[in-house]
Amino acid sequence: INSKLPEVSTTIFTVMSKMANEYNAMNLSQGFPNFEASPELINLVTYAMHKGYNQYAPMPGLLSLRDIIAEKTNSIHASDYHPETEVTITSGATQAIFTIIATCIHPGDEVIIFKPAYDCYEPSVELFGGTIVPIQLKTADFTVNWKEVQEKITPKTKMVIINTPHNPSGSVFSKEDMLQLETLLKDTDIILLSDEVYEHIIFDNVEHQSAARFPGLVERAFITASFGKTFHTTGWKMGYCLAPKELMAEFRKVHQFNVFCSNHPMQYALAEYLKTPENYLSLSNFYQEKRDLFLSCIKDSRFTFTPAAGTYFQLLNYAEITNEGDVAFAERLTKEHNIASIPVSVFNLNRQDNKVLRFCFAKTDDTLRRAGDILCRV
Amino acid sequence: INSKLPEVSTTIFTVMSKMANEYNAMNLSQGFPNFEASPELINLVTYAMHKGYNQYAPMPGLLSLRDIIAEKTNSIHASDYHPETEVTITSGATQAIFTIIATCIHPGDEVIIFKPAYDCYEPSVELFGGTIVPIQLKTADFTVNWKEVQEKITPKTKMVIINTPHNPSGSVFSKEDMLQLETLLKDTDIILLSDEVYEHIIFDNVEHQSAARFPGLVERAFITASFGKTFHTTGWKMGYCLAPKELMAEFRKVHQFNVFCSNHPMQYALAEYLKTPENYLSLSNFYQEKRDLFLSCIKDSRFTFTPAAGTYFQLLNYAEITNEGDVAFAERLTKEHNIASIPVSVFNLNRQDNKVLRFCFAKTDDTLRRAGDILCRV
Ligand SMILES: CSCCC(=O)C(=O)O
Ligand SMILES: CSCCC(=O)C(=O)O
Repeated sequence: INSKLPEVSTTIFTVMSKMANEYNAMNLSQGFPNFEASPELINLVTYAMHKGYNQYAPMPGLLSLRDIIAEKTNSIHASDYHPETEVTITSGATQAIFTIIATCIHPGDEVIIFKPAYDCYEPSVELFGGTIVPIQLKTADFTVNWKEVQEKITPKTKMVIINTPHNPSGSVFSKEDMLQLETLLKDTDIILLSDEVYEHIIFDNVEHQSAARFPGLVERAFITASFGKTFHTTGWKMGYCLAPKELMAEFRKVHQFNVFCSNHPMQYALAEYLKTPENYLSLSNFYQEKRDLFLSCIKDSRFTFTPAAGTYFQLLNYAEITNEGDVAFAERLTKEHNIASIPVSVFNLNRQDNKVLRFCFAKTDDTLRRAGDILCRV
Repeated sequence: INSKLPEVSTTIFTVMSKMANEYNAMNLSQGFPNFEASPELINLVTYAMHKGYNQYAPMPGLLSLRDIIAEKTNSIHASDYHPETEVTITSGATQAIFTIIATCIHPGDEVIIFKPAYDCYEPSVELFGGTIVPIQLKTADFTVNWKEVQEKITPKTKMVIINTPHNPSGSVFSKEDMLQLETLLKDTDIILLSDEVYEHIIFDNVEHQSAARFPGLVERAFITASFGKTFHTTGWKMGYCLAPKELMAEFRKVHQFNVFCSNHPMQYALAEYLKTPENYLSLSNFYQEKRDLFLSCIKDSRFTFTPAAGTYFQLLNYAEITNEGDVAFAERLTKEHNIASIPVSVFNLNRQDNKVLRFCFAKTDDTLRRAGDILCRV
């Protein structure tokens, strides 16, 4: 067959995780916790399976789960999402993102994304015949030049994709950023895809600026979220999508033929678990301590850094250590020093190499200390 | 936004299940069991969650699960699937089917399907710009006129979709059918999508004629299968896809950006549970008894039927009862007699109405007896 994605190969996450396994290296590459999910949450899944939640969930998701998601979102962001028509449970945020793009992008549509960008947006847009219009974030602090965005908007622009807190940089959009975006999109038909999977991992008492807070964005936004990130269960593949009802109606048409519905017992468990806000509100502190531990362990290394403002990723610049390309250096670290990371160039425009690696600090304190030891010796 | 699926609304399964709930009717419409999954399988999921299988599975699936799927398939059908490169675990068979179509169908491609057809094929093909070429099965016995198929093949034909055992009719393809298909496709580049989700539900000692048995089909086939159907867990959304490695490589490119991977603890549990072949080999007998019980309960009714050869669906013809359209009659049965079914016309070419309803007999014996009582009184 005629490949639809001729340039795509295995994702960098699979490549690096595989290499980590082969070389028995500490895996700080692919983003996932190496500690356990809450036993309470696990017990809720067990309970749901024994209670008979084993057949199809409703196509848009279990209503009790949609109810509590709407309630949580509306109370945190003063938004007004309706559980019946504006919340859909998905098999992970990736499935939500793919389905949003499938729903909105027609051949020839332009999609603005910010680089470095998580790797699933581009091939999905390409698959539906869209054209990526990439904008490189500033190298030093990963901020957006909104004037440049304005210049890149054309009559063909169909979608802007943002991601805050931002993977891989760990930066976050300020309220000012969101207001700029709101102004730019006003009076256009441009759809916003706001990937907010790290919404509950944001540090130093900064507030997450969800698209849900800005009426001029809400009216055009698909917001995606991830239970995997929030509850240390990336392998459960549970997430959700918020959108105004007209957009959500179109999303659901595609969703119902893509997966029909998502895992039922896990939906039940998540609905129960979300009843305790502490279960997600405690996450920022939890990860801030991990970030701080990791950074304290490498303060004597030759890596340089700006502390991550959100996500469970920390970028480290190694320009003082070597002139090697970041892909080569990440490989060498894995093979010779037994620590795996992600070379950030793979997410950049034209694979621009700024000598930066991404390390996932969703790891036990012990792992973080051992990682620090290794990195101090590099 | 510009709808990609302007004609799609909520699926008939959602509509009828909702109506069944509203009227407190026995729900024999949407296909799912009303009895429990095996406690052993449930316990295996619990075990996996406690053992820490809560982070991303490998993108194509847990290797131990792919291993045992390949072993099972190869031993039943004398095929030669390789677990590393030719088996991928999916979030249900629906996700597999959608991803196959996403992988293969370019705008303008023609896809031959047989009507009545399960409702997910057509919108998925449409979404990717393909054109459906429908062929109506014979009304009496749902067999294919292979000469008609030959006539419908054009240079634009990119795919043929088959489904055996067949939903909604309960018919199965014979070896002769598969050989005819093999001959027709020989020396073409046409892809076969063989939806075999009811592979383990086939009655009266007939053998399932998987595409995996026919070398001329295997080389071009994506085969989809469903753990939900086989293990009474439709709500777990677990399935898989088989294909020769060149096709599978393209499938995985799309799969990794659609869902990335599928539920990890459930993959672990399924791999363990599949180690006991009795767990799936017993299924045909189990459902044959249900079919026979259901049919014995309605033998004094005014419905007429040919016993299903496979699947957990039984078609009943009501022409001797009323002249009403099948959609209206299905609604009336739900509202007035408190029993919900699926009107088959919605799956037919031009919604051709043959006065046939589909009843799901994946129900407890008690439910089947009560259903029989109701249907005898209609
Ligand atoms: C789906 S694997 C990638 C996990 C992740 O979000 C990341 O490492 O950035
Ligand atoms: C995905 S809901 C439909 C279930 C089913 O396979 C059927 O009822 O035909």
